[in-house]
Amino acid sequence: MAIDPNASIEITAFTWVPEFAQGLVRDLRVRWALEEAGLDYRVRLLGQQRSIDYLKEQPFDQVPCFSDGIVQIFETGAILQYIGEKSESLLPRDPQRKYRAIQWTYAALNSVEPAVQHRVLLDAFYGEQEWAKLRKPSADEFARLKLKRVADRLGENSWLEGDRFTIGDLMMVTVLRLANKGGLLGDTPNLTEYVKRGEARPAFQSALNDQLTTYRENQPEGAAA
Amino acid sequence: MAIDPNASIEITAFTWVPEFAQGLVRDLRVRWALEEAGLDYRVRLLGQQRSIDYLKEQPFDQVPCFSDGIVQIFETGAILQYIGEKSESLLPRDPQRKYRAIQWTYAALNSVEPAVQHRVLLDAFYGEQEWAKLRKPSADEFARLKLKRVADRLGENSWLEGDRFTIGDLMMVTVLRLANKGGLLGDTPNLTEYVKRGEARPAFQSALNDQLTTYRENQPEGAAA
Repeated sequence: MAIDPNASIEITAFTWVPEFAQGLVRDLRVRWALEEAGLDYRVRLLGQQRSIDYLKEQPFDQVPCFSDGIVQIFETGAILQYIGEKSESLLPRDPQRKYRAIQWTYAALNSVEPAVQHRVLLDAFYGEQEWAKLRKPSADEFARLKLKRVADRLGENSWLEGDRFTIGDLMMVTVLRLANKGGLLGDTPNLTEYVKRGEARPAFQSALNDQLTTYRENQPEGAAA
Repeated sequence: MAIDPNASIEITAFTWVPEFAQGLVRDLRVRWALEEAGLDYRVRLLGQQRSIDYLKEQPFDQVPCFSDGIVQIFETGAILQYIGEKSESLLPRDPQRKYRAIQWTYAALNSVEPAVQHRVLLDAFYGEQEWAKLRKPSADEFARLKLKRVADRLGENSWLEGDRFTIGDLMMVTVLRLANKGGLLGDTPNLTEYVKRGEARPAFQSALNDQLTTYRENQPEGAAA
């Protein structure tokens, strides 16, 4: 529920990232889940240059890693599930509802995020490159198709499986926040509202605030906020 | 362990796909896991044109879906976990080993597959397009970096977490088979051997044979095998 240097749960996060990535870095997902579950945690901050030893914890050199004295794991999907096992409010115990929640974490990360990320990075990272300009129309169409599939499924529901928020929604909302930042939700107003519902949760607000506070406190001189 | 029209477990699969995709379509993962777990299953075959109703089962219009009278789910990661819960040989019960296995399914699908798939599809689908030619060097470099990360972590081990095959390996091997088909494993001989170890498992052989047999039996006249 709060950051506590003596908590048994530790996550890794970056000291600072450029403005575009602020509020999108993946430790946000884990902070959010921990806030929803009411679990204290401490943060081990990592600079832009990680020690080679960090690859033993996270072979892709990313954040977050999670440890609590029982498990040491990476990949936000696995971490959300582990937190969900401690909190029925995030991961139902009934098999159908449980595996639907898990299913949506994979859907967010594999059926939606790659198309959205590819499209958004065309502008954010590759905007001046010729291939990115040529690729943009088809990448845009593909990302919007994936988003429409989610929108059609969500329909008028509050959350993906009805009226109950799960780790599947938590993951999907974080992926759709990237789509939203990239201006891709214009055709799917129900997804825009879905993202707003997620962002309005007090646990999300606390998690986002904690991530951004760290970046503010460690902002390099001369860097844009 | 065998396809049985009266089995309680049902998966969906395609009647036929073009040659490039044969042996790569995702029902292979679920067939393989079911074979490892010794569980019979039946297959509901879908043609190239699916009914609009299928989107209610699988909003992205893909295969496989899985049902057994208890759960009805899609996303191979969730399905492998569900099968793993029935078979300790695929998903250990000890929390650290369990969540490491789960972690690797997400790593395969989110930290590796998007980069590999993007690179491989440049040749397979977009080879004649100008943007694909311009993009290829950077996409190649990015995919190979991800593969090197996996190779460094695997090292001399038989499987990702040592000597025990899990759903994490099953998922990673299927992703690396795509990389292998795209010619991307030349720099990482231990990944080539890892893929061979996976493919040598009798359960994999049965699963692959069953997928390919269906395609052979339903090959459209005039289509390449």
